[in-house]
Amino acid sequence: MSEVIEILKKYSESIDHEIKEALSTINPQALLEASNHLTKAGGKKIRPSLAVLSCEAVGGKPEYALKTAAAIELIHTFSLIHDDIMDADDMRRGEPSVHVLWGEPMAILAGDIIFSKAFETVIRTETDNSSYKRVTQALETVVDSCIKICEGQACDMSFEGNFDVSESEYMEMIYKKTAALIAASTKAGAIIGGADEKQVEALAEYGRLIGLAFQIQDDYLDVVSDEESLGKPVGSDIVEGKMTLMVVKALESASPEDKETLITILKENNPERVDEAIAIFEKYGSIEYTHQVALDNVQKAKDLLNIFEDSEAKDALILLADFVLERQH
Amino acid sequence: MSEVIEILKKYSESIDHEIKEALSTINPQALLEASNHLTKAGGKKIRPSLAVLSCEAVGGKPEYALKTAAAIELIHTFSLIHDDIMDADDMRRGEPSVHVLWGEPMAILAGDIIFSKAFETVIRTETDNSSYKRVTQALETVVDSCIKICEGQACDMSFEGNFDVSESEYMEMIYKKTAALIAASTKAGAIIGGADEKQVEALAEYGRLIGLAFQIQDDYLDVVSDEESLGKPVGSDIVEGKMTLMVVKALESASPEDKETLITILKENNPERVDEAIAIFEKYGSIEYTHQVALDNVQKAKDLLNIFEDSEAKDALILLADFVLERQH
Repeated sequence: MSEVIEILKKYSESIDHEIKEALSTINPQALLEASNHLTKAGGKKIRPSLAVLSCEAVGGKPEYALKTAAAIELIHTFSLIHDDIMDADDMRRGEPSVHVLWGEPMAILAGDIIFSKAFETVIRTETDNSSYKRVTQALETVVDSCIKICEGQACDMSFEGNFDVSESEYMEMIYKKTAALIAASTKAGAIIGGADEKQVEALAEYGRLIGLAFQIQDDYLDVVSDEESLGKPVGSDIVEGKMTLMVVKALESASPEDKETLITILKENNPERVDEAIAIFEKYGSIEYTHQVALDNVQKAKDLLNIFEDSEAKDALILLADFVLERQH
Repeated sequence: MSEVIEILKKYSESIDHEIKEALSTINPQALLEASNHLTKAGGKKIRPSLAVLSCEAVGGKPEYALKTAAAIELIHTFSLIHDDIMDADDMRRGEPSVHVLWGEPMAILAGDIIFSKAFETVIRTETDNSSYKRVTQALETVVDSCIKICEGQACDMSFEGNFDVSESEYMEMIYKKTAALIAASTKAGAIIGGADEKQVEALAEYGRLIGLAFQIQDDYLDVVSDEESLGKPVGSDIVEGKMTLMVVKALESASPEDKETLITILKENNPERVDEAIAIFEKYGSIEYTHQVALDNVQKAKDLLNIFEDSEAKDALILLADFVLERQH
């Protein structure tokens, strides 16, 4: 775990510098402050680190990918600000959300300008080291993930109160909502680093797989972890009636009675029935299944790295894949 | 006027086709419908026409600029959807706003995905006709205008209830909020058309000037036009307490008593005191001043076109500049 922290720390300062520079000229003051609020509150910087490491793994200098990496983090930030408005989430990274502090209109604008700044940042990649063609391809990758993020969020919203979601629909939703941006990080990093097509595809797929594993592990931890590690009560997703892989899997195989019970619990917002829901998950093997899907995705992701020459960056990508399963929250 | 309608009709179908194509693949259904609502409701397509004409005026084929033109219209659409949420405007183009029909979360998402689609559309410009460098520069131009739109909207919001706004602060606000995207249309069109630096600058400045004139004429018409032409009562801006060039100018030169009266009226939301406010504007010459600023900007804009060879496109740009002052709403 401490190795992963070292990896994430390595470029964190340079990435922060790029982000700070991108957001420093915003006017007027209220918009400047609202736009900087979330980046000041931190974040692990996994996505931008993946971009830089992917650039390095294909032989590019890490600094080539810093602007693209910062842009990816800005896109993540923009989506958090808008998601928090849509989901009426009042806290983020231990602080009140942007819309709580500055109101919804300013939060919408802060998201919009951060979004614009992300594209500006990719465009500012030095073309001495990377051709206009590669910068355009990196931009295309980032833009494509933005479209997917919006579609994923809309899918997630459409799942609310809808318990007729298939496993493939669920996987499509989490791919778009969570994994697409992680895949864009590794893909755009590889493109900027000068990768050939096969390398770009391998790293894009690596990103997609660990992105899926990341979300699935989140679902899994919600029922197998403990309150202290999670920072919230076990089974919060159940109480919120959230669609997770465990729910999808259990609903698929449960008896009509168990299915009805589970749906009732998910609609009820009742913390006292969490254990009952977990018992249904266990009965139909959906906790184990979920864990296995996360494990398989991470293993496949790591296997894809076999085509790359050994390097510190490659080792770091392997460690980051494992980290997805090791983290406790 | 009918000549202008002909100009705007000329490429309108091709532009609509590009927009339709850009938005056709959106998923899920609710997001698709919300995203297409405003483009279906029409709009005059002035901005995209300016992009295509600027491309032609520098010798490029009009079809080269169609994707950039469509992107500009998409950016305009995105900003209208988000502005309507922020300003709680419930009607747009004679139809209920997106947030009224689909709710705020879906309207935020529709704006976000249209924004993304705009960038995707520019990136898809054929590089057979225009180099990656020019596509990147066109993108940079569009992105820069998006940043300005957000800043302009934030400035406009900060002016609410603040009557200590200088003329230059007001001009900066309308430049960012309205003129920057029009300047981006002509600038990006010129870039895609293969313009040299001097031509790009001339067309960018032409766009900026007619963009300013467009907004200033809006301010002017609010007090000199009639209800039938405007489609809303004369003096609506006064009743809403909106900052306009007439207000800024009158507050700058009015006696302390008249200044106090005008501020009181602007805060009051009282349609019966519109005439009193207009009398103050007249007393300090601010209606005439506003009209003159619009006229001067249009004249300067047209003068900038002198460097271009005569062409149908150049004639059309001259007519569109005049149209800014001729329109009655």
